[in-house]
Amino acid sequence: MVQYRLFFVLLFVGFSYPGISQPRALVFQSDFGLKDGAVAEMKGVAFSVSSDLKIFDVTHEIPVYNIWEASYRLYQAVPYWPAGTVFVSIVDPGVGSDRKSVVLKTKTGHYIVTPDNGTLTLVAEHLGIEEIREIDETKNRLGNSGKSYTFHGRDVYAFTGARLAAGTITFQEVGPKLSAQVVRMDYQKPVLVNGVIKGNIPALDIQYGNVWTNIDMEIFGKLGVKLHDKVHIIIYDNGQPMFEEDIPYVNTFAGVPVGKNLVYMNSLLNFSLGINQGNFSDKYKVSSGPGWSISIWKTKQ
Amino acid sequence: MVQYRLFFVLLFVGFSYPGISQPRALVFQSDFGLKDGAVAEMKGVAFSVSSDLKIFDVTHEIPVYNIWEASYRLYQAVPYWPAGTVFVSIVDPGVGSDRKSVVLKTKTGHYIVTPDNGTLTLVAEHLGIEEIREIDETKNRLGNSGKSYTFHGRDVYAFTGARLAAGTITFQEVGPKLSAQVVRMDYQKPVLVNGVIKGNIPALDIQYGNVWTNIDMEIFGKLGVKLHDKVHIIIYDNGQPMFEEDIPYVNTFAGVPVGKNLVYMNSLLNFSLGINQGNFSDKYKVSSGPGWSISIWKTKQ
Amino acid sequence: MVQYRLFFVLLFVGFSYPGISQPRALVFQSDFGLKDGAVAEMKGVAFSVSSDLKIFDVTHEIPVYNIWEASYRLYQAVPYWPAGTVFVSIVDPGVGSDRKSVVLKTKTGHYIVTPDNGTLTLVAEHLGIEEIREIDETKNRLGNSGKSYTFHGRDVYAFTGARLAAGTITFQEVGPKLSAQVVRMDYQKPVLVNGVIKGNIPALDIQYGNVWTNIDMEIFGKLGVKLHDKVHIIIYDNGQPMFEEDIPYVNTFAGVPVGKNLVYMNSLLNFSLGINQGNFSDKYKVSSGPGWSISIWKTKQ
Repeated sequence: MVQYRLFFVLLFVGFSYPGISQPRALVFQSDFGLKDGAVAEMKGVAFSVSSDLKIFDVTHEIPVYNIWEASYRLYQAVPYWPAGTVFVSIVDPGVGSDRKSVVLKTKTGHYIVTPDNGTLTLVAEHLGIEEIREIDETKNRLGNSGKSYTFHGRDVYAFTGARLAAGTITFQEVGPKLSAQVVRMDYQKPVLVNGVIKGNIPALDIQYGNVWTNIDMEIFGKLGVKLHDKVHIIIYDNGQPMFEEDIPYVNTFAGVPVGKNLVYMNSLLNFSLGINQGNFSDKYKVSSGPGWSISIWKTKQ
Repeated sequence: MVQYRLFFVLLFVGFSYPGISQPRALVFQSDFGLKDGAVAEMKGVAFSVSSDLKIFDVTHEIPVYNIWEASYRLYQAVPYWPAGTVFVSIVDPGVGSDRKSVVLKTKTGHYIVTPDNGTLTLVAEHLGIEEIREIDETKNRLGNSGKSYTFHGRDVYAFTGARLAAGTITFQEVGPKLSAQVVRMDYQKPVLVNGVIKGNIPALDIQYGNVWTNIDMEIFGKLGVKLHDKVHIIIYDNGQPMFEEDIPYVNTFAGVPVGKNLVYMNSLLNFSLGINQGNFSDKYKVSSGPGWSISIWKTKQ
Repeated sequence: MVQYRLFFVLLFVGFSYPGISQPRALVFQSDFGLKDGAVAEMKGVAFSVSSDLKIFDVTHEIPVYNIWEASYRLYQAVPYWPAGTVFVSIVDPGVGSDRKSVVLKTKTGHYIVTPDNGTLTLVAEHLGIEEIREIDETKNRLGNSGKSYTFHGRDVYAFTGARLAAGTITFQEVGPKLSAQVVRMDYQKPVLVNGVIKGNIPALDIQYGNVWTNIDMEIFGKLGVKLHDKVHIIIYDNGQPMFEEDIPYVNTFAGVPVGKNLVYMNSLLNFSLGINQGNFSDKYKVSSGPGWSISIWKTKQ
């Protein structure tokens, strides 16, 4: 499945972006929130490196210390940016511990600057690891920041990401090459056994309350479900069943009446659950994370 | 009144912006929130179209599925951007239904890329319709996105808006011209009858709790109210009176003591209600939308 | 202490930024929130002044009317931006009153465009006052905005800030020079008496619940506290003791077990309190502002 997904992404990147001669974007993600000055400190450091940088954000509202969600939001957003784009992701509950500070180059040509604490789990699996380097802080650290031990996001990650995006340093100059492995978090990978697919619920489509799984089109296709067929769903929280129902499979929310449950392929082409103009997650108390899983099979029609 | 307002806006645009030879801005609005990766997917698609685009936001915190508020926030923000600016507005509860995907060019030279589901109501009235085109999705759709049915914001609207702003396509290349009509939502237009003005409460000044109406300076001026005169106010929720009081008309919040009610012309030059350093909306349980209306007349002094 | 801090900042600026020949950034801050169109109106005005401007934000979620917090977030973020950067800060409960509209040039070469209502308190102290000018609204005001009395953020501050950042006007053309004084808010300055340091709690590290003081490394160093020594802490709300404990001094959060209290130097090199992966502010009901103070001394080990 990883191979399939990777092929798809490479095709997409190749199709859409003729090269990396464009200026590179620098894209931030964190659990800092937007109520104080922390994000602006990082962007000030980046802008000081080069005023030509194009600076964007994924989100700064990753739930505090939620490494899993940081990993998922990168998986969600990275493929839509051109090869060469530099992402800086900072969810770092272990700042000052011995987690490594790294830059991952994916096989799709994207760079992720982050503490290697599990944040890279899903990007490494889905986009592939081209090469990983550890940030050499003796060379890649904001000047005069040596007395600050608690904001590596600003002093190390934003600074290094900005210099990489601006071309001030090459990928090699980030620091020494590491073996092609990242710290990974454990979760239910999608598997098909005897007509039943098991998978994980990695994230919610938060604003609307839709529930997303990691069951992709390829494996779902093997169930032979056609549009408007029903699919049997069981959702588990750490192994405890929380929800069970047969739900029709449709293309779009408008495929069922307002207020009715539906299953569909979401915008990342993963199997998902929703309510037309309603909030599935709230209504059925279904959440997401490594401990949430799902079993699905084709209902006898 | 529409004529008057349009004239004002044209004057403003003409005065401030000598031409559209500047690079065009691309400005997003949605009900996606900022907690996940959806907005970043759209911006990645736009940046992939052209890394020279200047990308901004109105807000991504339109209440979920609230088409009316999407319409109002465009009315509020669009006139302050140069002619040629391309807005992409996505509040799309009917994604996958038969609402049309369109680009409106206003008489002021602004472009709005959006589902035609009522979002264009207020911009069409206040800025005028120069021309509307339906997006031809066979030509204007992100490559390899054909299997995704639920994120037209990314696959169609952001992609088309970015290509239009970047000059990759002309307005004509968006798709076929439609008749100059948009789907409109119904609400109380401002009218003066027998010394009483009736109007709508389209929106709140959310952060401060001020209450904004659609009664503009021209029609309000006909009441002959002078500074510090009192105005009699009745506010209705779907026809039920919710608030009634005589309130002094002042220029600024500092025109009454802290904690006191006031009426004033807001920053869009519409009649509004507030409390000096207080929250009118919270205190009196007044909200906004097509169903909220107001009657005002000059109190006998 | 101010001298020391200023020297440090000048060193930092001098080190990182060879000159101000780079395009200047325009950085907004306000209490407007991001739910409506107000920030987009300001950015539209700025973009209309020059489409070459690099536009950023500190935060728009300053608590409503909280001038103190506006002052602190500027103190926090400004030093990380290059000299020449123009900040526009709008927390303006007295819009329409006789507070002055000014531009402060700091000794570090940063510009702050703001109502002079206390917002400049901390920047003036820490970065120094090079020169202050009052905005001449007869020259520096958005065209056709004369009838709007309530949104100086858009009509005066954003417009003037954009023109200054774009080089459309010089600092001198802002308006007449004022005496080098700003409206200041009162708070406990850090002082060491008989082995006890008293100071202020100006702000929280909101997202994580850490508690920041204004006690810097220089004065703290005089207590002779070494890593892993304990420090005696008393926190006061308007003079009432709210919290008292001996807490170990460490470099990083990982320096104590998960769930334990710690004191440390934060990323601005000020003495701070936290809980490893916990929320100090919530747990002990400690907040921030001019009325919150702290006393610390070295615990007898």
